[in-house]
Amino acid sequence: MKKNAEYLASLRDVMKAEGVDCVIISGTDPHQSELPPKHWRGREWLTGFESENGTNGTAVVLADKAYVWTDSRYFIQATDQLRDTGFEMMKEDGPDAVDLVDWVTEHVNAGQTVGIDGMTFSISQAQQLQQELTDNNIKFNDHFDAIAKIWADRPERPKNKLFVHDETIVGETVDSKMQRLMAEVKGELGNAVMLSALDDIAWATNVRTTNDISFSPIFVAYLYVDDDKRILFIDKEKMSDEVAKHLEKYNIGVMPYDSVIEFVQKLPKETRLLIDPMKTSRGLYDNIGCTPVFGGSNVAKLKSVKNAEMIKNIHTAMLKDGVALTRFFMMVEKEYPTGTLNELELGRRLRALRLADPSCVDESFSPILGWNAHGAIVHYEATEESSIPVTGDGLLLVDSGGQYTFGTTDITRTVALGTPTAEQIHDYTLVLKGHITLAQAIFPKGTRGGQLDVLARQFLWREGKAYYHGTGHGVGFFINCHEGPQSIRLNDVPTPLEPGMITSDEPGIYIEGKYGIRIENLIATQQYETTEFGDFYNFKTLTLFPYDARLIERSILTESEIEWINAYHQMVYDDLSPLLQPEEQQWLAAKCAKI
Amino acid sequence: MKKNAEYLASLRDVMKAEGVDCVIISGTDPHQSELPPKHWRGREWLTGFESENGTNGTAVVLADKAYVWTDSRYFIQATDQLRDTGFEMMKEDGPDAVDLVDWVTEHVNAGQTVGIDGMTFSISQAQQLQQELTDNNIKFNDHFDAIAKIWADRPERPKNKLFVHDETIVGETVDSKMQRLMAEVKGELGNAVMLSALDDIAWATNVRTTNDISFSPIFVAYLYVDDDKRILFIDKEKMSDEVAKHLEKYNIGVMPYDSVIEFVQKLPKETRLLIDPMKTSRGLYDNIGCTPVFGGSNVAKLKSVKNAEMIKNIHTAMLKDGVALTRFFMMVEKEYPTGTLNELELGRRLRALRLADPSCVDESFSPILGWNAHGAIVHYEATEESSIPVTGDGLLLVDSGGQYTFGTTDITRTVALGTPTAEQIHDYTLVLKGHITLAQAIFPKGTRGGQLDVLARQFLWREGKAYYHGTGHGVGFFINCHEGPQSIRLNDVPTPLEPGMITSDEPGIYIEGKYGIRIENLIATQQYETTEFGDFYNFKTLTLFPYDARLIERSILTESEIEWINAYHQMVYDDLSPLLQPEEQQWLAAKCAKI
Repeated sequence: MKKNAEYLASLRDVMKAEGVDCVIISGTDPHQSELPPKHWRGREWLTGFESENGTNGTAVVLADKAYVWTDSRYFIQATDQLRDTGFEMMKEDGPDAVDLVDWVTEHVNAGQTVGIDGMTFSISQAQQLQQELTDNNIKFNDHFDAIAKIWADRPERPKNKLFVHDETIVGETVDSKMQRLMAEVKGELGNAVMLSALDDIAWATNVRTTNDISFSPIFVAYLYVDDDKRILFIDKEKMSDEVAKHLEKYNIGVMPYDSVIEFVQKLPKETRLLIDPMKTSRGLYDNIGCTPVFGGSNVAKLKSVKNAEMIKNIHTAMLKDGVALTRFFMMVEKEYPTGTLNELELGRRLRALRLADPSCVDESFSPILGWNAHGAIVHYEATEESSIPVTGDGLLLVDSGGQYTFGTTDITRTVALGTPTAEQIHDYTLVLKGHITLAQAIFPKGTRGGQLDVLARQFLWREGKAYYHGTGHGVGFFINCHEGPQSIRLNDVPTPLEPGMITSDEPGIYIEGKYGIRIENLIATQQYETTEFGDFYNFKTLTLFPYDARLIERSILTESEIEWINAYHQMVYDDLSPLLQPEEQQWLAAKCAKI
Repeated sequence: MKKNAEYLASLRDVMKAEGVDCVIISGTDPHQSELPPKHWRGREWLTGFESENGTNGTAVVLADKAYVWTDSRYFIQATDQLRDTGFEMMKEDGPDAVDLVDWVTEHVNAGQTVGIDGMTFSISQAQQLQQELTDNNIKFNDHFDAIAKIWADRPERPKNKLFVHDETIVGETVDSKMQRLMAEVKGELGNAVMLSALDDIAWATNVRTTNDISFSPIFVAYLYVDDDKRILFIDKEKMSDEVAKHLEKYNIGVMPYDSVIEFVQKLPKETRLLIDPMKTSRGLYDNIGCTPVFGGSNVAKLKSVKNAEMIKNIHTAMLKDGVALTRFFMMVEKEYPTGTLNELELGRRLRALRLADPSCVDESFSPILGWNAHGAIVHYEATEESSIPVTGDGLLLVDSGGQYTFGTTDITRTVALGTPTAEQIHDYTLVLKGHITLAQAIFPKGTRGGQLDVLARQFLWREGKAYYHGTGHGVGFFINCHEGPQSIRLNDVPTPLEPGMITSDEPGIYIEGKYGIRIENLIATQQYETTEFGDFYNFKTLTLFPYDARLIERSILTESEIEWINAYHQMVYDDLSPLLQPEEQQWLAAKCAKI
């Protein structure tokens, strides 16, 4: 047996001592982070199952049973890692899916108690769980933090130093953001707001760090704002002189991270505190002494709209990213014939090339580098076990991005190595047509992403082909690579596309066991024209890197599509070549040649 | 003063006598019909404002004020018709819109009473009104039917004879429909259902009439169904021998229309009666003695999916419609040079040509026949006052349809008379491209109309042009020309397009004061193919009549669009020509010539 079996025994001792018959342990933190810091990876420590996204694993422990729920991307890995731990895997999706809450209500008897640590469940989640339990006469204990009691060598909360995100890059002062924030808070009938989501806090304060959380420069904190007070709750070790001055300049007081609980307990009754029930923990909510007001969707919208300065500055990030990708794909082409490349190694090389630029503090997500059949696994991540050599003929799918102080990038290119098949060329071109048609869209004010989604899918659909992931997600600015509220996808999301929103454009096609193709640029919504019929918007393509001309079936492109590709390639060459060495320039010129 | 002032005085006497301080009079009937029979046009009688759709006018009367709320299509007409009646107009939409319920709660004092006739308000509407009134401490009387007391020469309920809709045309017996209906009722947790909506009842019974209601062969009734009993509530004068036998065959008992109230009062407690809160009156609901269950959306879906027999038979309706339209447009072309045509006259001629076929019992809606600037008014209806001569150069927009026993038609064609401008030709072609692109769509199972909508709009949007009405509405089969639940429009409707659903495909462009263009066919969703990516559907175009080649700018069409038009025109000619006279065949052949 592994150590985990011991942890499980200790957990059961605590459960017994505190009269809890079943405990549910989430994989997130008090900020509902998808990628929680190590300090909050208690579910991972307890079970031995390491999912990158904390939210992709939830443990349920009873006196005689213990399970981890996860989704289909992790079935093989979880089965493997859970061996000899005392835990078994449960499927969260797919044909054998078991609903966690239903299962708990069926396996816990009336009168028994289910415990959770309310700090690691959102208000909405906890409310839904409590409702189901109550309906089944099961008791609910929402302050059962067993992990804290049994995790001996628990890592500290991250103490990384904060730095200021240069306001000449951001294009907006904290004062301006706070004023806009309070206007939204009042619009939602609050007179104060407590931000828990780390990306919201980083946005509002123009402050960042590195390594608190993987792949995003956000930091662990809470932020309280009303008309008179602004308070940042952080661990004091994180403070730097630069940030202290910055916070002082904007009248942002600093209090210890843990004091947030007492702070909300003592808020005066007349405070109407806006909190987002999807992003705020049940634990914090339980302590609020004033009047809570549920809302917050407009706060997310503030963050999603980038100002002109940000749109201008992200061009710098795109230039740096384009240079790194040029060097990467040039290296791939050069070394591929040696037969020594493999997926994992390529990932390491790509990371190094990006981080060579001092303004790049991290990758923006764990890169997806899939060769042939691995490219058909939408969220593939190469590991020591899964990584395969990149040899023979085929397609290499590379989905990656960087966190530059000038903005966050996210790009997918699929390239042929060796000789591509006619089917691969045809499929690539169908995906490319959809990608271009969406990029070229012109649409009236008020249009939602879901209305434009078909533009990217139509060419595949005509041939009985389809992808079922979203076509585009919102992208943060030196914050999270995935953010809301807008998106371009099959289901309808009510937020219209507004000028300044950055969204990805990433159609694909996945042939199981054979190959995957995805092509992704970031596009920014912008004003196009005003006519007697109203305001019209279009997209400005931000990403700078050529498509693979060897995979383009020219005969099925329209003249307008060919012109668009040639103009795009010309722009890529003109923008990137001054930053490249002569040999690199030559390589890029060939890739950007007119088709 | 007009007579209406006297009616208003009588109404106020009744209000005073019964202690009602404000009365709200809807324009609909106990079945929530958009086009109520004359018997229920009490709002029209009282106020003198004649809106074709009853739901486009609501009267509010207080002791010293009286208003009619209506929408922007009727502002001019209502202002005119309400002169000297004691009523003033209120705007329901546009920049000066006033919310009726808000206005009432502001102008009626706490403790006062608002009265409605609950039979002419849906459960949902009445509930919403009551909530607002209660919140403002205003009393609510939902059985105040003042109109019945003061309308001396009120027309009777319609007594038109019923007939059976030939089951060889319908392709499904009443038994089969009742079984499917009860399966849906049980799926929504009822064990019985009361249908109030007249189109639902006509569908379920395979019975029709003429003239109960304009433009739809539905009849005034209620229908109760459970596992043991089926009861149709109708006025006995409507019964015919044929229908009596038909109902007997399917074990459908008949009871007097008015007895429905007592019937629902006496339903046993264990009956869980499914009623649709949007389609059932508050008055009926108030009388239900058993357990009401709100639901019914799946019943609408049953009706929306047409079986293979119906899809086959509607071809016959389309042939007859195509012949009528051939004769109509031939006549227009021939007589136009005389300068004697006008919009109203053209409407009469078109109606006569359709109704010349014995299987056509009515038009399917009041035709929209707009010459030049009138074509730009989306819901234009020519009247004695508004009708203009069809002379000079311009565009004639003709949106019309017929109620054939073989199915319901709805078609729009826009034609040039004299010499069209380059702008008109260009706009027509943009609309046509959208119309064709939607008609050619191939899409996976589960796709909603709202996802495909952009296909019809994209070419206009690219040039900063737009129309803001829906692209497509569901169409009934010898029932209402507009039905749900599916639609193809800007806002998202959750119902996916399913094989057998008939929907319109009608993009347009409207240049205020100049001209309007709309092109409309009916299209049926059908299975296209099954691949490793799932089931794919496409559309079968049902409507048969050529586009105006004089308005087509061939150079902006793709090869595929040109091929589609030529193939469509060939099909139109092949299908219609055997039914035409030689001169008509020649005319049609020229219209269907390859472009």
